[in-house]
Amino acid sequence: MLNEKVMDIKESLIRKISDEAKKYPKVLNLTVGEPDIPTPLKITEYCIEKMKKNKVVYSPTGGLIELREEVTKYFNGKYQCDFDFENALICSGSTEALASTLKTLINLNDEIIVPIPAYPGYEPLINLAGGKTVFLNTELNNFKISVELIEKVITDRTKGIILNYPNNPTGVCLNKNEIYKIVQFCKKKNIYIISDEVYEGLAYYDSVSFTSYFEEYKKIIVISGFSKSHSMTGYRIGYLLGDKEIVEKIKKVSQFNVTSPNLIGQWGGIIALKEFSNTDESTNIYRKRFLYLKRKLEEIEIKVVESFGGIYLYFKNPMENISTFDFVMKFLQDEKIALVPGEAFKNQGYVRVSLIQDIPELKIFFKKIKNFVDKE
Amino acid sequence: MLNEKVMDIKESLIRKISDEAKKYPKVLNLTVGEPDIPTPLKITEYCIEKMKKNKVVYSPTGGLIELREEVTKYFNGKYQCDFDFENALICSGSTEALASTLKTLINLNDEIIVPIPAYPGYEPLINLAGGKTVFLNTELNNFKISVELIEKVITDRTKGIILNYPNNPTGVCLNKNEIYKIVQFCKKKNIYIISDEVYEGLAYYDSVSFTSYFEEYKKIIVISGFSKSHSMTGYRIGYLLGDKEIVEKIKKVSQFNVTSPNLIGQWGGIIALKEFSNTDESTNIYRKRFLYLKRKLEEIEIKVVESFGGIYLYFKNPMENISTFDFVMKFLQDEKIALVPGEAFKNQGYVRVSLIQDIPELKIFFKKIKNFVDKE
Repeated sequence: MLNEKVMDIKESLIRKISDEAKKYPKVLNLTVGEPDIPTPLKITEYCIEKMKKNKVVYSPTGGLIELREEVTKYFNGKYQCDFDFENALICSGSTEALASTLKTLINLNDEIIVPIPAYPGYEPLINLAGGKTVFLNTELNNFKISVELIEKVITDRTKGIILNYPNNPTGVCLNKNEIYKIVQFCKKKNIYIISDEVYEGLAYYDSVSFTSYFEEYKKIIVISGFSKSHSMTGYRIGYLLGDKEIVEKIKKVSQFNVTSPNLIGQWGGIIALKEFSNTDESTNIYRKRFLYLKRKLEEIEIKVVESFGGIYLYFKNPMENISTFDFVMKFLQDEKIALVPGEAFKNQGYVRVSLIQDIPELKIFFKKIKNFVDKE
Repeated sequence: MLNEKVMDIKESLIRKISDEAKKYPKVLNLTVGEPDIPTPLKITEYCIEKMKKNKVVYSPTGGLIELREEVTKYFNGKYQCDFDFENALICSGSTEALASTLKTLINLNDEIIVPIPAYPGYEPLINLAGGKTVFLNTELNNFKISVELIEKVITDRTKGIILNYPNNPTGVCLNKNEIYKIVQFCKKKNIYIISDEVYEGLAYYDSVSFTSYFEEYKKIIVISGFSKSHSMTGYRIGYLLGDKEIVEKIKKVSQFNVTSPNLIGQWGGIIALKEFSNTDESTNIYRKRFLYLKRKLEEIEIKVVESFGGIYLYFKNPMENISTFDFVMKFLQDEKIALVPGEAFKNQGYVRVSLIQDIPELKIFFKKIKNFVDKE
């Protein structure tokens, strides 16, 4: 028998939607997290120059020192941290950073709290690492985690909590004071904070990061990458920041997991941070799309969750008589537009739209959903 | 407490040697598996062309269909297999292919047999996946696995065996008949064969692969990649071949582990297989180096293991009064040449030389070792 945890992994709802979408010749795909904004040209050009002049060899374990330094400079400057390169580990995407982190932290049956709605990749990684996923519904608290909520589910076996702000799918952020309270509480309870901040560079208003409080509490591990902020999905470079001793342990696990991240993507990461650490231009594009679509949807009385960052809009299923999954399937079949139902994030009653098309396409989406809702 | 299996991972011996090597300004480093032969220029150029014309986006889960097809074509042509693209999975290097495979196969306390000398990455991956590593010494059988040897350690809990021919560090290969016997035995015992064939493209004489017997036994999983055969270490692209149902399961694990492999490296893999599937040129270079150094070492009565492929030479410690580790450390301190002691591969009494320098450097190595041995 193969690993039982692997057998338990169900076919994802996103996959079901995307299989259905393939049946139609022309579908407006608003399901994926693939930015339409191109990678800054200079990043590609820099990688090409480096490839012309250098062999593409193994990078040192843990990534190029220069990139590790650039990552820490970025956080030191933006969030007044005091990291040096040994606090940073370069990984094969933020997914691998998370996988290797969880593998390093979790002992058999340790519990990890996952606020929902949540990115669907967290639960399988926790379970594959031998842990138990403890879901925590945040909907009644405006999709925000709080000390009161954590208190409801924390036990002696709680090893940590995975947080993700700006959140996928809701776009919700925590403010600095809210982060501070979470940090104080987790410190008191001695549990790890694993903060997935892959949308940190795309915060619409105030940028916040758990790295701000690293000096107060060393059991914070922040994970991020270049896929969303710099439209570098196919380069597969992510990173994590944490206590040097923990980073050294995760480095070992990462080394056995993938040897080292690819070198070309790391060159891209260096230039991304050196010359494009300010990602306001992309952020403004996504914010504009969000605000546009929010206004339109509210005109037809569809409730939209207020987003503070990222590349998604999360709205309430306007049809009370059918499940969100059925709504999404029917909308796809009738209007040829693919969305992701909240069920994919363990949340009922909401739908995620990826803001990875420009206003004209979002206008089409709006017309179709208006028509679809009116029809019923 | 962090994961106890992670805490168990010891500092590697190779690391100790390499730390010592850093103390000297000029060291001839013959420890690493980084080919000195450059990546074929056309591969780099093709990647650059693709980067100029295409966005570097997420590839499909499991890798580009075109690359999956090229991989199966290569094995179908060379070993008369009947794979289609669903038998192949593209991974973030062969290490990730192995990590995701072991994670998929192993249930808690399943045993995996590892013939030694063995690549040091196997044991931690098995242990991190919750399995138990059962080492099996092959030295007295000329460093070859055999049915008789497996019978000594197989139990009801044996889930599989990891084989690696052409072998790192010895260069030993199995012939087709030897492979056939292993396959028949494992089939009878119903255990998985995980065949790490990353040096398959660099076999000096007859190329052999467990894929030859895939039609007879579906529990064979073959792992390989482009790092060694095409000097593409920094591109981080590997792959595996197996039964479609198992591959589909490993694909899920790989997806949660790393999302997908980087796109640029996959473009490189496509052109590597389309235009450079014949790797005789590199193979001849490594073979020539091996034969040269073997002849020289035998002139001074150092025993060399006969290699049939790969990029290493494995010789017997010529100093009976000290351990191989001490021999390597002393040779480094005195002669400024870094080697890897057999202890790193769980084998006593032998030393690995990487054949990643050309004859003039190997000549220097020979002079120094002759001098070193004469001195004692």
